[in-house]
Amino acid sequence: MTNEILGIAASSGIAIAKAFRLENPKLIVEKTTVLNMNQEVERFEQALETSKIELEGIKEHAFKELGEDKAAIFAAHLLVLSDPELINPIKEKIKGEQVNAEFALDEVANMFINMFEAMENEYMKERAADIRDVTKRILSHLLGVTIPNPSMIAEEVIIIAEDLTPSDTAQLNRQYVKGFTTDIGGRTSHSAIMARSMEIPAVVGTKTVTNDIENGAFVILDGLDGKVIVNPSDGVIKEYEAKKAAYEAQKVEWAKLVNERTVTKDGYHVELAANIGTPEDIKGVLENGGEGVGLYRTEFLYMGRTQLPTEEEQFDAYKAVVEQMEGKPVVVRTLDIGGDKELPYLDLPKEMNPFLGFRAIRLCLEMQDMFRTQLRALLKASVYGNLKIMFPMIATLNEFRQAKSILIEEKEKLQAEGIAVSEKIEVGMMVEIPSSAVMADVFAKEVDFFSIGTNDLIQYTMAADRMNERVSYLYQPYNPAILRLVKMVIDAAHKEGKWVGMCGEMAGDEIAIPILLGLGLDEFSMSASSILKARSQLLNLSKAEMNTVIEQVLNMKTAEEVERFIKEIEVEKVLNLNKSSFTR
Amino acid sequence: MTNEILGIAASSGIAIAKAFRLENPKLIVEKTTVLNMNQEVERFEQALETSKIELEGIKEHAFKELGEDKAAIFAAHLLVLSDPELINPIKEKIKGEQVNAEFALDEVANMFINMFEAMENEYMKERAADIRDVTKRILSHLLGVTIPNPSMIAEEVIIIAEDLTPSDTAQLNRQYVKGFTTDIGGRTSHSAIMARSMEIPAVVGTKTVTNDIENGAFVILDGLDGKVIVNPSDGVIKEYEAKKAAYEAQKVEWAKLVNERTVTKDGYHVELAANIGTPEDIKGVLENGGEGVGLYRTEFLYMGRTQLPTEEEQFDAYKAVVEQMEGKPVVVRTLDIGGDKELPYLDLPKEMNPFLGFRAIRLCLEMQDMFRTQLRALLKASVYGNLKIMFPMIATLNEFRQAKSILIEEKEKLQAEGIAVSEKIEVGMMVEIPSSAVMADVFAKEVDFFSIGTNDLIQYTMAADRMNERVSYLYQPYNPAILRLVKMVIDAAHKEGKWVGMCGEMAGDEIAIPILLGLGLDEFSMSASSILKARSQLLNLSKAEMNTVIEQVLNMKTAEEVERFIKEIEVEKVLNLNKSSFTR
Repeated sequence: MTNEILGIAASSGIAIAKAFRLENPKLIVEKTTVLNMNQEVERFEQALETSKIELEGIKEHAFKELGEDKAAIFAAHLLVLSDPELINPIKEKIKGEQVNAEFALDEVANMFINMFEAMENEYMKERAADIRDVTKRILSHLLGVTIPNPSMIAEEVIIIAEDLTPSDTAQLNRQYVKGFTTDIGGRTSHSAIMARSMEIPAVVGTKTVTNDIENGAFVILDGLDGKVIVNPSDGVIKEYEAKKAAYEAQKVEWAKLVNERTVTKDGYHVELAANIGTPEDIKGVLENGGEGVGLYRTEFLYMGRTQLPTEEEQFDAYKAVVEQMEGKPVVVRTLDIGGDKELPYLDLPKEMNPFLGFRAIRLCLEMQDMFRTQLRALLKASVYGNLKIMFPMIATLNEFRQAKSILIEEKEKLQAEGIAVSEKIEVGMMVEIPSSAVMADVFAKEVDFFSIGTNDLIQYTMAADRMNERVSYLYQPYNPAILRLVKMVIDAAHKEGKWVGMCGEMAGDEIAIPILLGLGLDEFSMSASSILKARSQLLNLSKAEMNTVIEQVLNMKTAEEVERFIKEIEVEKVLNLNKSSFTR
Repeated sequence: MTNEILGIAASSGIAIAKAFRLENPKLIVEKTTVLNMNQEVERFEQALETSKIELEGIKEHAFKELGEDKAAIFAAHLLVLSDPELINPIKEKIKGEQVNAEFALDEVANMFINMFEAMENEYMKERAADIRDVTKRILSHLLGVTIPNPSMIAEEVIIIAEDLTPSDTAQLNRQYVKGFTTDIGGRTSHSAIMARSMEIPAVVGTKTVTNDIENGAFVILDGLDGKVIVNPSDGVIKEYEAKKAAYEAQKVEWAKLVNERTVTKDGYHVELAANIGTPEDIKGVLENGGEGVGLYRTEFLYMGRTQLPTEEEQFDAYKAVVEQMEGKPVVVRTLDIGGDKELPYLDLPKEMNPFLGFRAIRLCLEMQDMFRTQLRALLKASVYGNLKIMFPMIATLNEFRQAKSILIEEKEKLQAEGIAVSEKIEVGMMVEIPSSAVMADVFAKEVDFFSIGTNDLIQYTMAADRMNERVSYLYQPYNPAILRLVKMVIDAAHKEGKWVGMCGEMAGDEIAIPILLGLGLDEFSMSASSILKARSQLLNLSKAEMNTVIEQVLNMKTAEEVERFIKEIEVEKVLNLNKSSFTR
C-alpha cells in the first residue's frame, strides 16, 4: 500500500482531516412470486412516496447550500419518480408476472438505464445516472436498507468513495466535509463540477482510493496537484499546512481584486469575462469580478425538456442576464446543439462522428424556425443591456452570411411590428474550426468580433477527440500550430479594427495567459471561479515583455518546448505568486 | 413519374439499353416445430452444401472476370458458410428448440448481423453485409426459392435494383450488362467500387429508381453526370449517342497517352502516380501509364484475417509491388488502422468519434511490435526497387521523430544481422491533419517529402465527417482555406528542397488539377483509372498561366467562387476536351 495516491485534480484547495468511507450498501434484489399483487403495488407506491419526501428534503438543502441551478438535479429526480413511462411498466410487471416490487423495479429501470447508456452521448448518459440514483433510493426503501446520509456527518472529514452520486454530493455539509476523493470520474464528471461549485477540494479518478484508505485514517487531500497522502509524517503535514495557508492567503489576496480593472504592469487593459450557462450563474460572475459575459451557452435552455423553449421563455432568460450585468457586455452564443449534446425531442439521427457532424449553426440554418425564435428572443432582450450575438461552428463565409441575414430579417420584422430592438448589437462568430482561423482575414471584414473556442479548435486542428483518453495527449493548447492559428485570427481582426475574445479553457490557463497577452487577445472568458486568479496574474505581467516572449514562442517546434520555456523565463516569478508556489 | 432521375455518378460512361429489374424474392421465414431434429439438421447441411457449390462457381466466375482481388469476397463468403461460430448455434437451436432450419438460421444470423452493424465501423458493417448475403443464399435453398442469377442475362440491359449485393455484382456479365442503377448506396459503396473496376457505368443512390422504372422500359444511364432517363425522346437518344461516342473516342485518345510523360504545354513535368491497395493493383497502374505508386495502402494486408500478417507475408507483398514497378517510385504508407478501419483481432475500444481517435501512427507508436514488424518487412523489400516510406496521421513533430527513430533502429538491427537494406529510402509523412499543414515549415526540415491526404485534411479543416450526408456540403476541396493550407505545405517543402505529392481524391479532380499545378504540386496520385484523363488535361495546361490563375484564386472567399472561376476562365477550353464537353 502506497502512502501517496495520484488522481485528477478536480477542485482546488488542500484539506487535512480523517477519512470517512462513504460506502453504499449492496442492494441485493431477489425474484420472488407474490400472491397479493395489489398489496405489492401498494408497497411500491409507498416506497415512491417515501423517496419523494426524502428527495424534496435534499432538494431544499441543495437549494440553500448550492443554489437553484444545482437543486435542479433533484427536480429532475422528482420527475423520474413520477414518470409514467418508468412507473407504469413496473406496476404492470408486478401484476402481470406476479413478481415482487424490487425485482420489477430493477428489471424495468435497468432496461431504461441500458437504453440511455447505449445512446452514447453525455446528456443521455446523465439521464441514465439519474435513473440509477433514483432507483437506488426507491430500492433502499423497499428493502428497508438505510442508505448512508452524508448530510449527517458532523465532524471534519475527507470523504473516500468509489463515486459520489449527485444526491450524495448535494447532501454534503460544507462545514464538516473538507474534501472528497473517488476511484472513478474525471474533471468534467458530475461530482467534480459540484465540488468546484461548492469550493471544496476534490481528487477524482484515483482508481484505488477506496482500496488504499481505511476509515478513520489520517489523510491529506491535495486538490491543487491531484494527490492524496495517507498517514503522512509530521514533516509532510507541516509542509501541507503551509501550502494550505499559502493557498488560502492567496485566495484572500485574489478576493481583494474583485473591483479592480485588469491592467498589466505597463498599463495595458484586457477584459476578463465569464462563461455562463444560465441566468443564475450571473451572481458568481459578479462576485468574482467578471467584467462581462464572454460566452453565454444558451443550450441549457433547451435541455431537460420535452419540447423547444418558447420565444417568451427565452426572452425572459436573455433579459435576466443582460439586465443583471447592468450594461457590461454579454456575448450570447446561439444554439450549439447536436454532436454530443442531443435534444431528445428533436430526434436527430445518430452519427458516427458527432464532433464532425450536424450541429450548431449547421443545424440552425436548416431548422430555421427554431433558429428564428431564438434570434427574435435575443433581439427583444437587446434593449435591456449590452447584448452581442455570435454564431457557433462557422466553417465557411456563406454560413456566416446566411446566419447574419436571417438575424437582419428578424430584426426588420420586429421593427415593422413596432418592437424595440437595440441598434448597437455586435454580431460575431466563434472561431473553433480550422478553416475559419485560416480564413480569418476574410471573415474579419464582415464580423464585428471573433471569439476563439479553443476546446474545439484544438481538437479539430490536432484531429484528436478531447474526450478520448487514448488521444488526449494530442490535446495541446501550447502546440505552436494552435498558437499560430490564434495569432492569425488576432492579427486579422486587429487589422480590420475588430476585437477578439477567447472562451475556451485555454483563456484561463496560467501558462497560456502570458502567451495570449503577447498575442494581443482582447478578452479572456473563463469560468467565474478562475477570474480573480487570472487577474492577479495579469496585474503582474508586462505586455511589452510578453510581446518579445511571443516572438520566441512562435519559432518553437513543439508544445513541450513552449511549456518549458514559459515556465522557465522570468514569467515564472509571476507564476510563483500563484499556484506554482504551492506545488513545489 | 418523372422522365429524368438523378443519382450519384458512381462509375463513368454512358449506356443505352432496356431496363432489367433485378428483384430479389422475399424470403419469408415461418417458425414451425420439427419432430425429427436430426433430419432437419441434415436438411440444413444440405442447403449449406448447395450454397457452397454455388459460391465456388461464382468465385470462379469473379476470378476470371474481375481478378483475384474481387474474387476474395467470395472466399470470405465461403468462410462464413463454414464458420462454426455461426453454424453450430444454428444446429443447436434446431435441436434444442425443435424449430425448423429456416427459423434457426434467420434468428442466429440476425443476431450476428445486428451485432456487427451496431459496431458502427465500415469493416464490421461489411461483415454484416457478408453474413446477410450468405444467409439469403442458404435460405433460398431451404425454401426452394430461386434467387435470380444475373449471370444468366443474355441480352443487352441496364440493371435496375434496390441495391446489388457483392454476389450480384460479381455475377454480372460485362458482355450484356451495360450498366446499373440502384436506389441506395454512395460512391464508396461496394457495388460502386465494383462497377468502376468492371468499367461499366453506374448511377447509385437514386432513392426511387425501382419505383420509377418498369421492366423492359427504354433507359439511358449517364454515369458521367449521375442521371437516368426513362423512355427518352428520339432527340435525347441522339444526343446521348453522341455523348457516348465522344466519351468513347476520348477514352481511345487517352489510351494513346499511356507511355507519355506528363509535361505541360510549357514543358513543366509533374508525376502522375496511382493509389493502390494490393500487389494485384499494379497491373492496372502500368496499363494506365502510372509513373509511380503515390500511395500504397498497406492496411488491406491486415484485413479479413484472424491475426496479424507475419513479417514474411508483408515482405512478399512489398517486394512484389516494388519489383513490378521496376525502379519507379513506390510510396508505402505504414499501417493506417483504427477509426472506421478496425481489425477484429486487435480488439480496439469503441470510440465516440473514431475519425478523431486512436488510429494510424498513434496506434503504431503504442503497439510497437506490430509497427516494427511492418518496418522490417519494408526495409527488407527496399533493395528490390525504389521504395519510400511515409507515416500517416502525423499531428506533432514528436510523433514524426519517434516514428523515424524506430525506423532507423530497425534498419540498424537488420544491418547488424547482415541483411541488405537500401541506403536511399526516403522517409516522409502524410499531411492530413491541420496542425501539420500549419507547421509544414518546421516538418519540412526533417522529412524527405510530404504527401497531402486531402480526404482527411478537408474533413478536419472543415470539421465535417465526409461520410455524413448531412454535412457533406462542407466537404469543400476548393475552399480557399484548403488551398491556402496546400500552398503552405508546398511552399514550405520547396523552400527546403523537398517534394510534395497529393494522394487524396482531389489530386485527380479536373477542377483541382489546374489549381494544384499552379500551386506547384510535384506528384499527383489518384486511382489508376483516372491517370490518363488527368494526363490529357495536364498536357493541355500551361504552368505559367496557372501561376497567374492561382494568384487570383488565393484571394477568393468561398469554394463556390473558386469553382465558378476555374470553370469560366480559359481553362475551360481544356476542360472541354475532357468530361465537360459531354455534360453540356
